[in-house]
Amino acid sequence: MIKVIVAGYQGKMGSTATKMVLSHTEFELVAVLDPHAEINALWEDAAFPDVNVPVFKKKEDLVKKVQADVWIDFTIPAVAYEHTRFALEHKIAPVVGTTGFTDAQVTELKAYAKAHKIGGLIAPNFAIGAVLMMQFAQKAAQYLPDVEIIELHHDQKLDAPSGTALKTAEMIAEVRATKKQGNSAEKELLPGARGADYEGMKIHSVRLPGLIAHQQVLFGGTGEGLTIRHDSYDRASFMSGVALGVKKVVALEEFIYGLENLL
Amino acid sequence: MIKVIVAGYQGKMGSTATKMVLSHTEFELVAVLDPHAEINALWEDAAFPDVNVPVFKKKEDLVKKVQADVWIDFTIPAVAYEHTRFALEHKIAPVVGTTGFTDAQVTELKAYAKAHKIGGLIAPNFAIGAVLMMQFAQKAAQYLPDVEIIELHHDQKLDAPSGTALKTAEMIAEVRATKKQGNSAEKELLPGARGADYEGMKIHSVRLPGLIAHQQVLFGGTGEGLTIRHDSYDRASFMSGVALGVKKVVALEEFIYGLENLL
Amino acid sequence: MIKVIVAGYQGKMGSTATKMVLSHTEFELVAVLDPHAEINALWEDAAFPDVNVPVFKKKEDLVKKVQADVWIDFTIPAVAYEHTRFALEHKIAPVVGTTGFTDAQVTELKAYAKAHKIGGLIAPNFAIGAVLMMQFAQKAAQYLPDVEIIELHHDQKLDAPSGTALKTAEMIAEVRATKKQGNSAEKELLPGARGADYEGMKIHSVRLPGLIAHQQVLFGGTGEGLTIRHDSYDRASFMSGVALGVKKVVALEEFIYGLENLL
Amino acid sequence: MIKVIVAGYQGKMGSTATKMVLSHTEFELVAVLDPHAEINALWEDAAFPDVNVPVFKKKEDLVKKVQADVWIDFTIPAVAYEHTRFALEHKIAPVVGTTGFTDAQVTELKAYAKAHKIGGLIAPNFAIGAVLMMQFAQKAAQYLPDVEIIELHHDQKLDAPSGTALKTAEMIAEVRATKKQGNSAEKELLPGARGADYEGMKIHSVRLPGLIAHQQVLFGGTGEGLTIRHDSYDRASFMSGVALGVKKVVALEEFIYGLENLL
Repeated sequence: MIKVIVAGYQGKMGSTATKMVLSHTEFELVAVLDPHAEINALWEDAAFPDVNVPVFKKKEDLVKKVQADVWIDFTIPAVAYEHTRFALEHKIAPVVGTTGFTDAQVTELKAYAKAHKIGGLIAPNFAIGAVLMMQFAQKAAQYLPDVEIIELHHDQKLDAPSGTALKTAEMIAEVRATKKQGNSAEKELLPGARGADYEGMKIHSVRLPGLIAHQQVLFGGTGEGLTIRHDSYDRASFMSGVALGVKKVVALEEFIYGLENLL
Repeated sequence: MIKVIVAGYQGKMGSTATKMVLSHTEFELVAVLDPHAEINALWEDAAFPDVNVPVFKKKEDLVKKVQADVWIDFTIPAVAYEHTRFALEHKIAPVVGTTGFTDAQVTELKAYAKAHKIGGLIAPNFAIGAVLMMQFAQKAAQYLPDVEIIELHHDQKLDAPSGTALKTAEMIAEVRATKKQGNSAEKELLPGARGADYEGMKIHSVRLPGLIAHQQVLFGGTGEGLTIRHDSYDRASFMSGVALGVKKVVALEEFIYGLENLL
Repeated sequence: MIKVIVAGYQGKMGSTATKMVLSHTEFELVAVLDPHAEINALWEDAAFPDVNVPVFKKKEDLVKKVQADVWIDFTIPAVAYEHTRFALEHKIAPVVGTTGFTDAQVTELKAYAKAHKIGGLIAPNFAIGAVLMMQFAQKAAQYLPDVEIIELHHDQKLDAPSGTALKTAEMIAEVRATKKQGNSAEKELLPGARGADYEGMKIHSVRLPGLIAHQQVLFGGTGEGLTIRHDSYDRASFMSGVALGVKKVVALEEFIYGLENLL
Repeated sequence: MIKVIVAGYQGKMGSTATKMVLSHTEFELVAVLDPHAEINALWEDAAFPDVNVPVFKKKEDLVKKVQADVWIDFTIPAVAYEHTRFALEHKIAPVVGTTGFTDAQVTELKAYAKAHKIGGLIAPNFAIGAVLMMQFAQKAAQYLPDVEIIELHHDQKLDAPSGTALKTAEMIAEVRATKKQGNSAEKELLPGARGADYEGMKIHSVRLPGLIAHQQVLFGGTGEGLTIRHDSYDRASFMSGVALGVKKVVALEEFIYGLENLL
């Protein structure tokens, strides 16, 4: 059994993470942390009626009373670094979904973890399917350099392309030579038809009601096509990545940035 | 048995049409026409070794010797009108895939066919699947007005969007009020990401090697999506439409423009 | 403004329907009905804090106090017929999502509505996209009789194929001659590979976690393919169909069974 | 420039390979081999009017006159082993698409190549996209063990599932524990609906006219899905894999079985 604490358990992500830990047969929830908590045990919270686990407001109190293997953190950028560092210092391997770390902070955490042989993970994206899609796309682009990205989201999304599409394009650009695709005399009868250009590869953003968050990366070669598609139907999609992180960090002796480096 | 002649039999489309007629149990090929023919019977052509059907260079010779029900025409714009008119005058129902008719010519052919109670069909697109896609898209847009079009073609194609995509958008625009889709504060981080705009609906053109000719029309509504996709894998895809046309025109007493008006 | 009452407002569907009516600019919610209600006005319900609309336990009380154009019914089979009949008798056009009507009851309701020139609608499936998919599939099958159905649902679903897949197959079978598809010497190396057979057409059921409710109908012809796909992401998908029903029934003078007969 | 010879140049695959070598700027075609050849130079063949390259009937004659780096072999099982061994003995790196090698033969070729530090490649499937699909599927299954395979082929195909689907399932089974997917109380209303079973994973085979050779591997996880799809539109799809093989074997000092081991 891996002993887990969840920091930020009252937030949307933290609460989902808490449920995930409780439902997982290999994990034991040993405490939760939230500065806004007004209860002392989880069963006082209507969402967790049968769960007899202590609730802490201060991390210093928590580590005095409870021993844990993994510290799941879904808090806020303002405290994430401090939390992560604190966990490492107490030999609790952090699995962090909170954003806002500077490069310097990540470097420092890596150095500390290495020196003390503790595992740790920060991941901006915990959806395993999305991370695999990006990895596969990067590999495929080495052999099938003609590629276009179509991302599809609900019609209230503001930015186009999506962050995931840009990140995918970036990862592909790292491994393929800049390449102007298509017919060199290509002509747009309506401006924008051929989509956005990112180092010669095209990105198309679809926005429709009903859609959630979807992306497909299309590769073309002589007489064949390869398509990698990810569908995100629900915010809970990040939970399998968190569970994987918890299982892996206990065996690590280094600090890793990005779920892709665990896969 | 429907007696069929094929005009323009030496062209790529005419030759495919000739084979279709020969393979169809309800059709009988009675003659072929081609001004460039240098043979008198089809079996002299290496492509049709066993087919004993007369080959004519001039349409006037053909109608003297042969009686037919349907005149399939895959010739060139310069002679298409004259051929079609000629067929009608000889009470042979024309099924025409040649392009280049003026509106006035179509109107006149319709009037003539109606007056003489002869059937006829001109279709710029004989692929039944493509025509159904456009029809369905037009109907769906009445109930699900949020729509985007993605068309995908091989990377040697010059124009974007494709003719079929533009035609689909046009047909949709006929039935839905102009509508600006997406978030009103939507922002393109890379220009072109949101595609081309056609009366408020977005069109995206993908170009990759390997692809042939594909299109999907995506509709979104509250909590649901509807997608209609057509894949054209082979030029032969137009043949089922021609066969359908042949069967239908013999029973018609009017001249029809567009396969969609037969479906 | 169309004056609407919602019967069964405390159920999951009834509650969603109530919200839909409130959010729609052309509709006015004039009353709700629920035998289990313990309040007299909707604002007493935490879900509708600002809505001053009367709540009734008995339909007889409701019609004494309130005048309405449309009666939305999401109740239970046991009372649905009685409700629908009652609505018609009080000249309120019913829009009914409750199931369990016998053929005799539907026939009788149709006769009554016709005699009294009142509109009405019962629809087992209110998702416009799904209904369009089935309609389009039925039409396409007339021209492209080679068809297979793939339906994809979450992995907790018990039955395979889904009701929608069976209904789609039924509708297709009505218009196409029974046809054995595929190679006549076809061989299953693993039993079940070619799916279930419904009058010669194949149905495949995919079950995976993450999926919600999806179906695609694939048609094949010489050199081409046509695919119609419906994705249901959320239970709310039936609401656009209910809204359409409300708008249409007020102008009808007959009783209709099936949303497809309104499209 | 890599000097290449093509064995079996008169076959369908050999002829396509010959054209690929000719069109590739980094390759130089130095000879072709075919026991049935009745010409001495390629320009005597109508398909290669301008190509002044010698044609040999016997491999022993060829190696006396010509020096080469790579031996592409698309011949027949009866001679493939002998050819491959012969190429290695003459320090020409073989790239072999011919099938029919026994395990013992492969083992022996590997040993010989290693001892003499020569590169070589036998690949039953040269379509890079298909090989990547299988590799990605195997990797994804380690993290998302719920998976189903849908393969789609033209309706003249005899066997279901396809060889590629079975190979994919096999590769997935190597890395995931046998797992019964779906609801344990799942019920087939029509037999076969849930497809074929391969160690707990389901395979569905679609057969329709128009289709060529397509496969998608669908993975599901909590709230998300990942789909990997390969489309093979044309027999030429194997050529990019052959070209890759030619480039890679010249730098190898071992004999490799399977394109996946080069990617």
